[in-house]
Amino acid sequence: MLQRPAVSAADNVRPVCEDILKRVQSDGDSALRDYAKRFDGRATDAPLLCSDLDFDDAEKQLDTELKDAIKQAYNNIRRFHLAQVPKNISLSTQPGVACELRYQAIDAVGIYVPGGSAPLPSSVLMQGVLAQISGAQTVVLATPVKGDTAIAPAILYAASLCGIKQVLQIGGAPAIAALAYGTDTVPKVNKIFGPGNAYVTMAKQLCAQQVPGLAIDMPAGPSEVLVIADARANGEFIAADLLSQAEHGPDSQVILLSDSAEVIAATEKALAEQLKTLPRAEIAKAALENSALIKVQSIAQAVEVSNLYGPEHLILQLGESAEFLPKIKNVGSIFVGDYTPESAGDYASGTNHVLPTYGYSKVYSSLSLLDFYRTYTVQTVTKSGLADLAKAIIPMAAAEGLDAHANAVRIRLGEKQ
Amino acid sequence: MLQRPAVSAADNVRPVCEDILKRVQSDGDSALRDYAKRFDGRATDAPLLCSDLDFDDAEKQLDTELKDAIKQAYNNIRRFHLAQVPKNISLSTQPGVACELRYQAIDAVGIYVPGGSAPLPSSVLMQGVLAQISGAQTVVLATPVKGDTAIAPAILYAASLCGIKQVLQIGGAPAIAALAYGTDTVPKVNKIFGPGNAYVTMAKQLCAQQVPGLAIDMPAGPSEVLVIADARANGEFIAADLLSQAEHGPDSQVILLSDSAEVIAATEKALAEQLKTLPRAEIAKAALENSALIKVQSIAQAVEVSNLYGPEHLILQLGESAEFLPKIKNVGSIFVGDYTPESAGDYASGTNHVLPTYGYSKVYSSLSLLDFYRTYTVQTVTKSGLADLAKAIIPMAAAEGLDAHANAVRIRLGEKQ
Ligand SMILES: [Zn+2]
Ligand SMILES: [Zn+2]
Repeated sequence: MLQRPAVSAADNVRPVCEDILKRVQSDGDSALRDYAKRFDGRATDAPLLCSDLDFDDAEKQLDTELKDAIKQAYNNIRRFHLAQVPKNISLSTQPGVACELRYQAIDAVGIYVPGGSAPLPSSVLMQGVLAQISGAQTVVLATPVKGDTAIAPAILYAASLCGIKQVLQIGGAPAIAALAYGTDTVPKVNKIFGPGNAYVTMAKQLCAQQVPGLAIDMPAGPSEVLVIADARANGEFIAADLLSQAEHGPDSQVILLSDSAEVIAATEKALAEQLKTLPRAEIAKAALENSALIKVQSIAQAVEVSNLYGPEHLILQLGESAEFLPKIKNVGSIFVGDYTPESAGDYASGTNHVLPTYGYSKVYSSLSLLDFYRTYTVQTVTKSGLADLAKAIIPMAAAEGLDAHANAVRIRLGEKQ
Repeated sequence: MLQRPAVSAADNVRPVCEDILKRVQSDGDSALRDYAKRFDGRATDAPLLCSDLDFDDAEKQLDTELKDAIKQAYNNIRRFHLAQVPKNISLSTQPGVACELRYQAIDAVGIYVPGGSAPLPSSVLMQGVLAQISGAQTVVLATPVKGDTAIAPAILYAASLCGIKQVLQIGGAPAIAALAYGTDTVPKVNKIFGPGNAYVTMAKQLCAQQVPGLAIDMPAGPSEVLVIADARANGEFIAADLLSQAEHGPDSQVILLSDSAEVIAATEKALAEQLKTLPRAEIAKAALENSALIKVQSIAQAVEVSNLYGPEHLILQLGESAEFLPKIKNVGSIFVGDYTPESAGDYASGTNHVLPTYGYSKVYSSLSLLDFYRTYTVQTVTKSGLADLAKAIIPMAAAEGLDAHANAVRIRLGEKQ
């Protein structure tokens, strides 16, 4: 019952993306302008990057309530991710042998924010705050802009809070190619973050294969929620959470596990009621068809099922969660208690809403500050430290048939080779 | 001059691997036995996994000097990686909103150790110690064994120090497929680590694409070293380091940057001298043909070149490194001073020898304990915390056109929808 629907891109996605990558690589900005015209109806002379004036206009146009909302979300996300700033590690493994693990912020990162029916300032914050904290030298945000409209003020305002100055008004595979290869206008980046449609996902994968040293974040699949609810849980709250997942798209998966038939019945009733007034009811109904409300024998059993399924979002509407929390694994993010809806984490609690989907939560992580860093090591050995290490190095190098490795030690210690 | 040679797998690698993956997926253990016979000349009834007796024999057969060497390396590697054990993070982002970042050890990991002319106990330690510290429930080591010989005692002894009990005596793409899909004998794992030839690398990539939620470590390219040496550096030490890199394989790249023509000349002389007695001289000579000894204007310039090149190993044979270390980035591992040869880190200093190659050091990390963990988040919001968060969530959900997200908050606060 918990089988995820198969996800596969249409056959033409790969060749279309390969063409776009080639053209952007060879023709740079002029290819970007052509694609912006073809895909988004932009004017040929529309600027590729937003100007300072665009940023000023956005700040003026945005209403105060939304501005304050974005600011509050920004502050919480910043607090949570600031607590993740990594510390270098330094120790002596044996006398005369000092070893360090050091963190380096990735120099240049690209952040993709998809377009669609509405602007997604939350997607800017969930990536941009991390780039800002890491101190990345170059941060480029790319997002599609339709026709002769201005870019959404909420996007630019969120970007400005994150200190992002380079905003590329281009979407889809051309945007990914520009970030991967660089153009006269767009700086080449080391890592590309952000979700998108099948073309964006394919372009990211192809670029990662073709550009040595380019990294991408994990693949984003359909969104999903699993709610575990006990007999005292409120069916209306549960229904609201299931619907807020279902409205993301017809391929969303929503699951309820409860040990109470009454709660399941109350949830079904509330779903029907709440669907009546929901603007995105058609999308939500389609998603509900793939989904399931399941009676389990116990909450402990529900936890076992969740560990097998590996949900992106796990909501625990339980009177007492403390007993179960330590047993939970393979989740993207957990929402504890009756007053922690998924939308809290989507927007404003401070946790990151970029999470592993499609069962990837057995091995992949929720997006964290460390995704904007890399690590390297440093070792410093004294002559006497090397004399002692030699007892390990020389026999092991001999066993592995690597004599020059042993010589590099012997020659330093004045030993015969 | 620092252009890396192009690396590409032969055309037949992909279809050969695709066939092997399909057969192992459908026929399991019997496919593994067939491939072990075909590729390694193993008997059809040779056991796939090592027995307890094999482990006992290995310990008895191994000479004391090598045993002590492996033990010393194990201890240092363990100390350095124990210092990397991650701590959960917990904080309140605003009143009534508690957020946590938690670490989960990856349940099941596979470690591949290539065969070749000699056993590689160091490769077992550099991965096995990390799996052991993480507490992974399942750890499977796979390595090829030729004909009717027993598996190398050094491999089994290193594995036993790391607490690894499941050792699969199979190499190449069949081993990777067994770890990815699982068979009756081999447990399916969540993440596969370890270097290998073109077939192993291709099999890892194909499995990661085909098995949802399977992760692999970064790709391993040809090994490389860059030495920066000042006028006081010892040409014999430099030559020994260049050769210990060059002997890894004909595609190794070795580079010296020095501001002293005398040091470069002394290094050239020492290279010729040391090559005379080197067993793997032919391999080293081939590698030296792709390589370069370069006169730079200053050590500061050498550091700039290194940052652009992004070497896997960087050796600083400098009288004073402190001035330059903070300016260095894009490296896998740094070896500081005259008495820190690369072979120290390859075997025994404690740092990990699995490092990003081929310029990947701009964005990828040296292997660290965190590669054996994943992170997830937890949030717990009180009713009054939610009332305050609502000021962020509701306007942002409205701006993004996601009404059910706003409803999930309003319904909990008893507000009209
Ligand atoms: Zn959502
Ligand atoms: Zn080496």
